[in-house]
Amino acid sequence: MYTTISGGVCAAQGFRAAGLHVGVKTHNQDKKDLALIVSDAPCVAAGVFTKNVVKAAPVLVTKKHLENGCVRAVIANSGNANACAPAGEENALRMCRAAASALGCRPEEVLVASTGVIGQTLKVDVIENGVPELAGLLERSGAASDAAAHAIMTTDTVKKEFAAEAVIGGKIVRIGGIAKGSGMIHPNMGTMLCFLTTDCAISRDMLGAALKEVVGMTFNRISVDGDTSTNDSCCILANGLAGNPEITEMDDRYVDFVMKLHEVCYTLARMMAKDGEGARHLITCTVRGAASEEQAEAISKSVISSTLMKAAVFGCDANWGRVLCAMGYSGEQFDPEKVEVAFASAAGEVLVCQNGRGVDFDEELAKKILSEDEVDIDIAIQEGGESCTCWGCDITYDYIKINGDYRT
Amino acid sequence: MYTTISGGVCAAQGFRAAGLHVGVKTHNQDKKDLALIVSDAPCVAAGVFTKNVVKAAPVLVTKKHLENGCVRAVIANSGNANACAPAGEENALRMCRAAASALGCRPEEVLVASTGVIGQTLKVDVIENGVPELAGLLERSGAASDAAAHAIMTTDTVKKEFAAEAVIGGKIVRIGGIAKGSGMIHPNMGTMLCFLTTDCAISRDMLGAALKEVVGMTFNRISVDGDTSTNDSCCILANGLAGNPEITEMDDRYVDFVMKLHEVCYTLARMMAKDGEGARHLITCTVRGAASEEQAEAISKSVISSTLMKAAVFGCDANWGRVLCAMGYSGEQFDPEKVEVAFASAAGEVLVCQNGRGVDFDEELAKKILSEDEVDIDIAIQEGGESCTCWGCDITYDYIKINGDYRT
Repeated sequence: MYTTISGGVCAAQGFRAAGLHVGVKTHNQDKKDLALIVSDAPCVAAGVFTKNVVKAAPVLVTKKHLENGCVRAVIANSGNANACAPAGEENALRMCRAAASALGCRPEEVLVASTGVIGQTLKVDVIENGVPELAGLLERSGAASDAAAHAIMTTDTVKKEFAAEAVIGGKIVRIGGIAKGSGMIHPNMGTMLCFLTTDCAISRDMLGAALKEVVGMTFNRISVDGDTSTNDSCCILANGLAGNPEITEMDDRYVDFVMKLHEVCYTLARMMAKDGEGARHLITCTVRGAASEEQAEAISKSVISSTLMKAAVFGCDANWGRVLCAMGYSGEQFDPEKVEVAFASAAGEVLVCQNGRGVDFDEELAKKILSEDEVDIDIAIQEGGESCTCWGCDITYDYIKINGDYRT
Repeated sequence: MYTTISGGVCAAQGFRAAGLHVGVKTHNQDKKDLALIVSDAPCVAAGVFTKNVVKAAPVLVTKKHLENGCVRAVIANSGNANACAPAGEENALRMCRAAASALGCRPEEVLVASTGVIGQTLKVDVIENGVPELAGLLERSGAASDAAAHAIMTTDTVKKEFAAEAVIGGKIVRIGGIAKGSGMIHPNMGTMLCFLTTDCAISRDMLGAALKEVVGMTFNRISVDGDTSTNDSCCILANGLAGNPEITEMDDRYVDFVMKLHEVCYTLARMMAKDGEGARHLITCTVRGAASEEQAEAISKSVISSTLMKAAVFGCDANWGRVLCAMGYSGEQFDPEKVEVAFASAAGEVLVCQNGRGVDFDEELAKKILSEDEVDIDIAIQEGGESCTCWGCDITYDYIKINGDYRT
């Protein structure tokens, strides 16, 4: 039903992008630090943002601009979060004004985002000086999406970009996106930056509902380190150029759109968890047999967030006791005597716990299973028929290294 | 008012202890793994236990035995948690029976605790075989308390032992204790093992109330890794041998007792945080100017639990943005614009954030301050007059090393 396509944030019709080094990141001239995404046609847009009480200035400005109902562009920098920093809102607004002036639109039609160090004044002048050159680079191409994806990276080791297409209402509709996020990643809104574009014709209400629904099932189900950042933003722009009949209610076409959006966000979320700072393993934890999806989600999140479990996976140690321990402090009630735990990967599957007790298992096989890049923890609790999957990563020496000296 | 004394868990009159290697820990014959604490006179006793849904068998047995109202001894092993393990309750009971038989009391008068790996069958026969020799070693001495303190250690690098005395009701009353806990430490009950003894004459109700009050202010305010274990137990035995008039209500003598108990638990809790697995820094976070103590506690706990903040302290990096970020996802409402943050230690103090914004500060001095073993994070939020202090530690390469290969 879905087809993966290239082009990232430029996959959908009418979207152009660019990325450039303008000087926010001072240490490395090779690292791009300013991204621009522009739609040729006016867009409806929606966003989901951090629940942290301490919100970065661009989050506040973007929320305000989304109320206008019409969006043309997104400008985003890396290297500085513009959070808890002097003149935060003014500087975020200046970024919007610079983009608007180069693009010939109104500043209120520009969304803005920042990521990087908290608490330092944003060098907004280098951004303003760089915007005209950046705008000159705008194009609709895979290379342009790639440049924008790189320009929002901080400690990320791989760029995160994905796009897919499907037929909705007889027309080919495309959704693509770029994302960043490697540390300060914890499920409570999409703990990261993510910009999505689509040429689908869809009303603003339906776009907002779809984004909220999909973020809850994808970005809100990943965790790297339990820290919910001040800057998390996930925005989607829809310009309607696909020409499909506009989606205005929760009908079959809405469901088709949600499923496609899910595909894109699911892929970007997994990329993010896998590229968790210093991570060597992507950990996928599925809880089955739960009384409700909420119960399954709470237990699964507790497992992927456990530092001890993460350290065990780093050591390729089938220490399922830590899985049970983390389940037990999830806040959910369940009968420990009915719990089943298995580890699985491309190398095989091994049942390690049944009826809440350890079972004899092949330690060599378990080690082999846990040595793979992608590891599954499969849990069954026999309380009902609901399930949920969350994603995380292991904690490694490199996580400590990266975060012991990030600011200086 | 308080005098620190030696003797640990044997400081109070009528308490004897012993520690021995009996073979639960198989890797190292030098490491003690079984502890016994005995009172010559019958005790009233109280306990506070893990809130984890998955509770170890000895926790269940000890809770039951505390209902009897009379306690004579505590038996505890390290090397195996007897949690999620076959025949768990039966094996915990067998430990009680072995101790009772050697001491000439009833099994219901014995409390039991275990700590170590989850999910493996406890080798209860080696414990049963070892108890007679262990009982023969019982004595009231600093060396005996030391042996018991060592026998409950797992990844701890230093033993935790403390005792203090004060005059209550005209008599010298002593309280002492031993504790263990280095990983799986997170505030939700005293996330560890702790055994306290006192010769104070106090009713069972008042003892229970005092323990609950003090644990809430001490052990429940430390965090090493956010993992609340299956075995956490903190028990206190009071044999009344000090001869003071029995404390039966919340009068001045009760307050004196609580303050002394606080002194002992506070010291043991700090020892535990400082000896967090792999830790190099004890981190003390105080939140002042809060609307309530609960608000101050929630914010302080969120800060000491932040993996990113812990990594920054490891790197001696005054990255106060991470402090604000962790405050912001504590679940408490406050005005970020009124926040003040300072770092302090024996090397000095430096204000890094005022009115929610970074202030210029001496980076060299900040680095020096954060290089000390004990570091304070002082936060003021200007919402009211309440405050709270919590304790944690940094996260280091050694934490990963210890926990990447603990079980095998």
